[in-house]
Amino acid sequence: MKTRIAVMVSGGGTNLQALLDAWKSGQFNQAEISLVVSNQEKAKALDRARAVHVPALFLNPAQYKDRQAYDQQLLKSFQENKIDLICLAGYMRILTTVIVRQYEQRIMNIHPALLPAFGGEGMYGLHVHEAVMQSGAKYSGCTVHFVDEGTDTGPIILQAVVPVLDHDTPDKLAERVLIEEHRLYPRAVSLFCEGRLQVAGKRVLIKEKA
Amino acid sequence: MKTRIAVMVSGGGTNLQALLDAWKSGQFNQAEISLVVSNQEKAKALDRARAVHVPALFLNPAQYKDRQAYDQQLLKSFQENKIDLICLAGYMRILTTVIVRQYEQRIMNIHPALLPAFGGEGMYGLHVHEAVMQSGAKYSGCTVHFVDEGTDTGPIILQAVVPVLDHDTPDKLAERVLIEEHRLYPRAVSLFCEGRLQVAGKRVLIKEKA
Repeated sequence: MKTRIAVMVSGGGTNLQALLDAWKSGQFNQAEISLVVSNQEKAKALDRARAVHVPALFLNPAQYKDRQAYDQQLLKSFQENKIDLICLAGYMRILTTVIVRQYEQRIMNIHPALLPAFGGEGMYGLHVHEAVMQSGAKYSGCTVHFVDEGTDTGPIILQAVVPVLDHDTPDKLAERVLIEEHRLYPRAVSLFCEGRLQVAGKRVLIKEKA
Repeated sequence: MKTRIAVMVSGGGTNLQALLDAWKSGQFNQAEISLVVSNQEKAKALDRARAVHVPALFLNPAQYKDRQAYDQQLLKSFQENKIDLICLAGYMRILTTVIVRQYEQRIMNIHPALLPAFGGEGMYGLHVHEAVMQSGAKYSGCTVHFVDEGTDTGPIILQAVVPVLDHDTPDKLAERVLIEEHRLYPRAVSLFCEGRLQVAGKRVLIKEKA
C-alpha cells in the first residue's frame, strides 16, 4: 500500500514543488502525493499540482461559518482521498483539533527557524527572519516537525542549520534558509514513508533502514 | 599596550585552560591573561593559573555582607590590575551591576547552548543539555556573548553548532559541546583584542582584519 500524501498550501508553494520533484524523481519509496489543498483560490501552488496531474482543491474559507466547519470539510476530503500524511507547506491557517486529533503524528509542518527558538504566534514568513536577525543569533535554519495542538510545538523530526551573516537582510537569510527547506522536507517525508520515525515524548528518533 | 584579561571561574576551568593555552601559543595578539579569580578556594582553575605563573586570587564570598560588597572588592582588584577584559569561564555567580556597568561590552561569558534558546535562570551545566534533549532539538552548540544586566541576554559574539544524536545523553552532549567551547572562546577573545568586535544593538559584527 502506498502512503497517500496531501499537501496544504496558501502561497507560492516552493516547498510543495520540492516535494513534487522529490516524488517524481523517485525519492519517496511507496508513496504518492495524492492531493493538494489551498485556502487561496489563486495560490500558484494549485497550478504546480495541476501541472503534474495531482488533484488540486481550493476550499473557500468564506463559505464556512468558522474554522471548525472548514476543517470538518477538509477532514472529509482527506478521508475520501484516504490520506495517510498531511504536509503543511506554507499553509497560513492554524489547523483546529478537528484535524489534529484525527491525524496525530501524521501531520508535518516546516518552519523557517531552529525551533524551539523563533516559533509561536506571529512567527511566520519574514517575521521569523527579522526576529532571528534582531536577536543577534549567528545561526538559523529550518525545522520539520509533527503538528500538535500548539503552535510550532510538536516533536521535531529534522533540522538544518544555516549561518546568519554580518551583511544579511531578512530577505537574504530567508533565501538561504529556503534552500535548506527544499532539501529537508523531502527527507522528512521519505523517512515517514519508510516507517522510520519513532516519537518518544518531544523527541523523534530515526530508526535504521530495515 | 597589551589588553589585560581577567578570567573568573568557579570550577575545573577547562575553558580557562583553553584560554591559557591559546595565549601561551601566541593566539592573542597583544594581550595577556593577567589575573584569575575564583569564588571557590579549591577551584582547580586556580592551580591551572598558578602553573603558568598567572596571579590566582580566591575571594571568599563568606567575608562580604552581600553580592554588591563582594563585587566592589572584585572591581577594586580589576582596577588595580588594570583589567581591560573580563572572561567568565564557568563562574557560578551572577555579576551585579557594580561590575557590569563599569565593564560594559568588556565582559564575556560562554554558554553551552545556542542562545537565545536554552538560556536564563537555572540554565547552567547539565541542566542546559537536559533541556535541549527534552526539547527534541536536533542541534545544540555554544555561545560567547557580552554580559549585560540580564541572564544570558547580552549581544552574541560567536556561536558554534553541534548535532544532538539519537543515542545521546546529557553528558555525551555536554562533552561534544565542550570541545567547541574550547575552540570558540579563544577566537572570541582574539577578535576582541584585535579590536574587531562592533556591537550594533543586540548584534555583534566582526570587522575585517586591518
